[in-house]
Amino acid sequence: MRNSLFENMNKQELITQIQQKKSFLCIGLDVDLAKIPTHLLTEEDPIFEFNKQIIDATHHLAVAFKPNTAFYEAYGLKGWKALEKTINYINENYPEIFTIADAKRGDIGNTSSMYAKAFFEDLNFDSITVAPYMGSDSVEPFLAFENKTTILLALTSNKGGLDFQGLKTGNNELYKEVLKTALTWKNSENLMFVVGATKAEYFAEIRKIVPNHFLLVPGVGAQGGNLQDVCKYGLTKECGLLINSSRGIIYAGNDENFVKAAQKAAYILQQEMAQILSK
Amino acid sequence: MRNSLFENMNKQELITQIQQKKSFLCIGLDVDLAKIPTHLLTEEDPIFEFNKQIIDATHHLAVAFKPNTAFYEAYGLKGWKALEKTINYINENYPEIFTIADAKRGDIGNTSSMYAKAFFEDLNFDSITVAPYMGSDSVEPFLAFENKTTILLALTSNKGGLDFQGLKTGNNELYKEVLKTALTWKNSENLMFVVGATKAEYFAEIRKIVPNHFLLVPGVGAQGGNLQDVCKYGLTKECGLLINSSRGIIYAGNDENFVKAAQKAAYILQQEMAQILSK
Repeated sequence: MRNSLFENMNKQELITQIQQKKSFLCIGLDVDLAKIPTHLLTEEDPIFEFNKQIIDATHHLAVAFKPNTAFYEAYGLKGWKALEKTINYINENYPEIFTIADAKRGDIGNTSSMYAKAFFEDLNFDSITVAPYMGSDSVEPFLAFENKTTILLALTSNKGGLDFQGLKTGNNELYKEVLKTALTWKNSENLMFVVGATKAEYFAEIRKIVPNHFLLVPGVGAQGGNLQDVCKYGLTKECGLLINSSRGIIYAGNDENFVKAAQKAAYILQQEMAQILSK
Repeated sequence: MRNSLFENMNKQELITQIQQKKSFLCIGLDVDLAKIPTHLLTEEDPIFEFNKQIIDATHHLAVAFKPNTAFYEAYGLKGWKALEKTINYINENYPEIFTIADAKRGDIGNTSSMYAKAFFEDLNFDSITVAPYMGSDSVEPFLAFENKTTILLALTSNKGGLDFQGLKTGNNELYKEVLKTALTWKNSENLMFVVGATKAEYFAEIRKIVPNHFLLVPGVGAQGGNLQDVCKYGLTKECGLLINSSRGIIYAGNDENFVKAAQKAAYILQQEMAQILSK
């Protein structure tokens, strides 16, 4: 979503987009050169070319795109350049799209400010994922950007997710303490939370703490989560969910027809979402 | 520290360096264009030029250099390029130096592997700082690199550090649980831990859990920690500490004599360290 004096990203714009597209799909742009169709490898910038074709084919089915920075940093300068070109391409051609830098950053206050500057100003993403371990002053510099969204890790769906997030701290598991504490931070209305889809039964508990905040939900598809289950417990009146799929969409095909395969995979999820939203 | 078939980074090399230089100083290369001497701003790459001069003037007083990636990402492609040039410059000219990418990364397993590739292979850092919130499979891909070091956040010295790290989980605070759990991970011998210097009294407790692992200690100087206090509780037979100073050294001066000012600030710390080591 492009920011200008007249066009500010906010929750309402995202909700409008969800209603218009009948979709709350986020597509993860995690580009691995070992997995993309080989005919793209002769392009000058294969990563960007792959993203561009995926974005063009799926932008009407998705409300958000989420490049994970690890996949770009792994290719050094070329990767960082491809990330810049990708976010610029989305902002110029599909300004309605909500863009997420899946960067999982977090550092002491003045350093987090530098990360916020990098992703919100320099790259002009609408949002960034942030890790909570270092506490309030590691997150508040991101929250200070009023027309930007900070997506805090709460409960992740990976194998080791519960190693610490599931530890009891008093009466609550750590991830609940993270949710509760984050609500007390300055500008907490600019928060969303990452909640993994492999643990759908947790959504009811989470909604008691954050009834209205949007949740970014990875783990549908490749990581084994179920869309219906997540929606049963996680959906709000305003939708309140962004469901991410990465590999299930972008690597649905791996030959010259990869674009059609990706579009079909996105369409199937969007159709399922349209049905859920119509209820 | 440059890696080759014949020259592998390991703990012993770091210890040897500490003994030879009588120093366990790490210098944080957190370059902010608003703070460096203005005469450098006309250089083609002011960030790298600043780093190069600081490194040349202080490499004999320090055993480690630690660029914080936030300060480079904030300048986009130029910043990433300056980071590449900086790490290459150290590896080529001062291969004995232990290099730390202060990146505080961490993601699900396959994604952490991409970060490990970016910093250990592409940039050839000896080590990287990693956040623990996502648990075992977010850290083990870094630990899998046998001649590299993974520096896990345990107890940080920032204002919000105790928001979650200080929460009681059973009988222990979370940061102690992180230390204990990390020791059970595969290749845990490749771990160091970040422990902030503003809480010197915690070092005695921490040494009960990790008696031998190296601790990277930010917060001496600008963040208010005291070197003597930290060493009283944190020092091991092999030293076991890397004390970081960033702003206190690199911004000791801000005119054309900034190099001498930085060298003097580093020298004062090194002399204090030499005295501590001689006891």
